[in-house]
Amino acid sequence: MKIILVGATGTIGRHLQQTLAPSHELLTASRSSSVKVDITQPDSIWEMFETVGKFDALVSATGHGVFASLPDLRTDDFYEGIRSKLMGQINLVLIGQHYINPGGSFTLTSGILAEEPIRGGTSLSMINSALHGFTMAAATELENGVRLNTVSPGLVEDSVATIGASFPGHNPVPMHRVVNAYVKSLESALTGQVLKVYG
Amino acid sequence: MKIILVGATGTIGRHLQQTLAPSHELLTASRSSSVKVDITQPDSIWEMFETVGKFDALVSATGHGVFASLPDLRTDDFYEGIRSKLMGQINLVLIGQHYINPGGSFTLTSGILAEEPIRGGTSLSMINSALHGFTMAAATELENGVRLNTVSPGLVEDSVATIGASFPGHNPVPMHRVVNAYVKSLESALTGQVLKVYG
Repeated sequence: MKIILVGATGTIGRHLQQTLAPSHELLTASRSSSVKVDITQPDSIWEMFETVGKFDALVSATGHGVFASLPDLRTDDFYEGIRSKLMGQINLVLIGQHYINPGGSFTLTSGILAEEPIRGGTSLSMINSALHGFTMAAATELENGVRLNTVSPGLVEDSVATIGASFPGHNPVPMHRVVNAYVKSLESALTGQVLKVYG
Repeated sequence: MKIILVGATGTIGRHLQQTLAPSHELLTASRSSSVKVDITQPDSIWEMFETVGKFDALVSATGHGVFASLPDLRTDDFYEGIRSKLMGQINLVLIGQHYINPGGSFTLTSGILAEEPIRGGTSLSMINSALHGFTMAAATELENGVRLNTVSPGLVEDSVATIGASFPGHNPVPMHRVVNAYVKSLESALTGQVLKVYG
């Protein structure tokens, strides 16, 4: 398959690249990769697809949001995550649907905060839940057999050292289980699903 | 209670006004009400709270999103709903948390599309799911015993004539059941809940 991997330089993206590169035509896209894209800019996404042309699958493991306690959260903090993790990923589907081959697939990334809030994570809970609703609905309207799923990882083992303290009581998830969820989305017939990989 | 009702002129808001006005100090807010507010403009929300001062509860039954089939949906269509039904309502909480009395409550409105997509409803499924994630998470961080719930109505009987054709197979919900969910949020001790009123 010709696969576009957006966010190949991230914690999960690096592992996806290692897993997918040997057996697929893998194009890595990010602000610093060979294929350039800034997902917060719809024009940049259009440009990426124009450059890449037809493809079979897109995997997105990118996007961020702002962590802050509720009394400190500002409207602009929400919009920062909306432009990146939420609408950045939605735009990959909205725009990509006009370039993807029949029978292709999109796989996005949300996270456990959709279901289990942590202190300071309100804007991420909002964003991840939004991605779940989008996935369920958009999958029913994608044409030509194109599929859409979202992987919702828990706290991955590789992130315990950096952000584990913000996830008290969370059981870390082995990275290979997270990677397998993306492989499942890519290679199965599933669509409209949230693939939860919680510890 | 001193209650701010945002969206008092809408299908559900009209009924909420009739139910709440006899037993509460009810202030109705909308672009055309005595208390002026345009929820798409954060400055307008700050101004509303400055005008109203301290209050005990805010009920929001307002906000819209764009309906269109997925191939026709554009980034701007999503942002129209984000500015209105999603961030408009979230901003009522983000800003209102600095004005609400201890033990007060916020009640927002989502809808059944969070869980059951309809054709053309992808942006609303995204928005309503986002409101559910926000509600669950923000409720854990509101201070001074302030509560937050969201009412998720199905197709209400009063809307069958206008939009019922877009909801094939949906059982209409009597308006008094929807109104009761708002009363439950207002008068109970519930917080962080999505109160589903489906047919």
